[in-house]
Amino acid sequence: MKLYDDQGAPNPRRVRIFLAEKGVEVETVPVSIMKGEHKQDAYRKISPMSRVPALQLDDGTVILESVSICRYIECLHPEPNLLGTTPQEIAQIDMWSRRMESELMAPMAATFRHTNPNMAALEKQVPEFGENQRAIANRRLAMLNDDLADREFIAGDRYTLADITAQCTLEFFPRLAEFDLKDEYVHLNRWREAVKNRPAARASIGK
Amino acid sequence: MKLYDDQGAPNPRRVRIFLAEKGVEVETVPVSIMKGEHKQDAYRKISPMSRVPALQLDDGTVILESVSICRYIECLHPEPNLLGTTPQEIAQIDMWSRRMESELMAPMAATFRHTNPNMAALEKQVPEFGENQRAIANRRLAMLNDDLADREFIAGDRYTLADITAQCTLEFFPRLAEFDLKDEYVHLNRWREAVKNRPAARASIGK
Repeated sequence: MKLYDDQGAPNPRRVRIFLAEKGVEVETVPVSIMKGEHKQDAYRKISPMSRVPALQLDDGTVILESVSICRYIECLHPEPNLLGTTPQEIAQIDMWSRRMESELMAPMAATFRHTNPNMAALEKQVPEFGENQRAIANRRLAMLNDDLADREFIAGDRYTLADITAQCTLEFFPRLAEFDLKDEYVHLNRWREAVKNRPAARASIGK
Repeated sequence: MKLYDDQGAPNPRRVRIFLAEKGVEVETVPVSIMKGEHKQDAYRKISPMSRVPALQLDDGTVILESVSICRYIECLHPEPNLLGTTPQEIAQIDMWSRRMESELMAPMAATFRHTNPNMAALEKQVPEFGENQRAIANRRLAMLNDDLADREFIAGDRYTLADITAQCTLEFFPRLAEFDLKDEYVHLNRWREAVKNRPAARASIGK
């Protein structure tokens, strides 16, 4: 199988970290979003909406959506487990990864897309909407700090897909969309330091 | 266990259809979004972001997110299967449900929230953003008609969570946000008629 991958964007990185945590190597095909390669006809045959990443299986089947790719990899390589083992844990990890997507990644991405001048070519920017989303994301950052006061990782006491989703969000958008990860967020920053230094996270950005 | 449920909104309905397809009955606790009950302190202790539905287990654990609740139910009641059996099918159904969320439900919901006067109390409305989202949703509707030209259901040849996500979207937002499900969308309308008349879908709205 082949993974269509962009080294800069947060979603493909989720899959690279997931694979590296599992110790699974997959052939990758670079698709540069910055160069607009994802919008070209050749890639649109793989991913009609130009979304990156995409996993193409040997029979030609394409799996889009980072989380769906991770789910496929987890089926083939169950260990180390990143999506849960009991029904309750499976549901909690899924819930926390989804919450990190909708409550944190989505408003940060919207802020970036609607307020960063470099995104004007890709998005019909509405700065007022972007600033409203900034406020939503900032409230969620403060809540996330509280969430992490009494547990080590996002979904509980071990590292899972929920952490991967949150860390790829927080290692990407704050720099580009001017979010302040304040020193007073001690729990959040303790967690950020821990997940940033995992070997798989470092390997996913070539460190 | 108890399901906190609103009869009007599309996300709780996803869970009700999922349960009805499985023939599983769960005690429900009504939470009226229209009456603002989801914003009250009592419910915020269950669901801090006021999201409905929520599934509370007998040990007090709360599972939020409609899809995570469905995943939990599928673990306990595997048949009839709605989330896939092989790794490839599991990934495809997950992908299609996610695509229906991000490509169809999200832009339709954003159109509704940002352009419908009744939503002004709940959302900092930015009509320009809402209209841009309307255009995105309308393009996706036309694509969905094409998607359904060569397969019976959204993710393939059988009814799955992906259909539930799409039908709860399309039986809710078009009426409230003035989307036109044109007669020329023959494949989409064939599918809409089929999924609308399933016993579980009818039961979920008391028909």
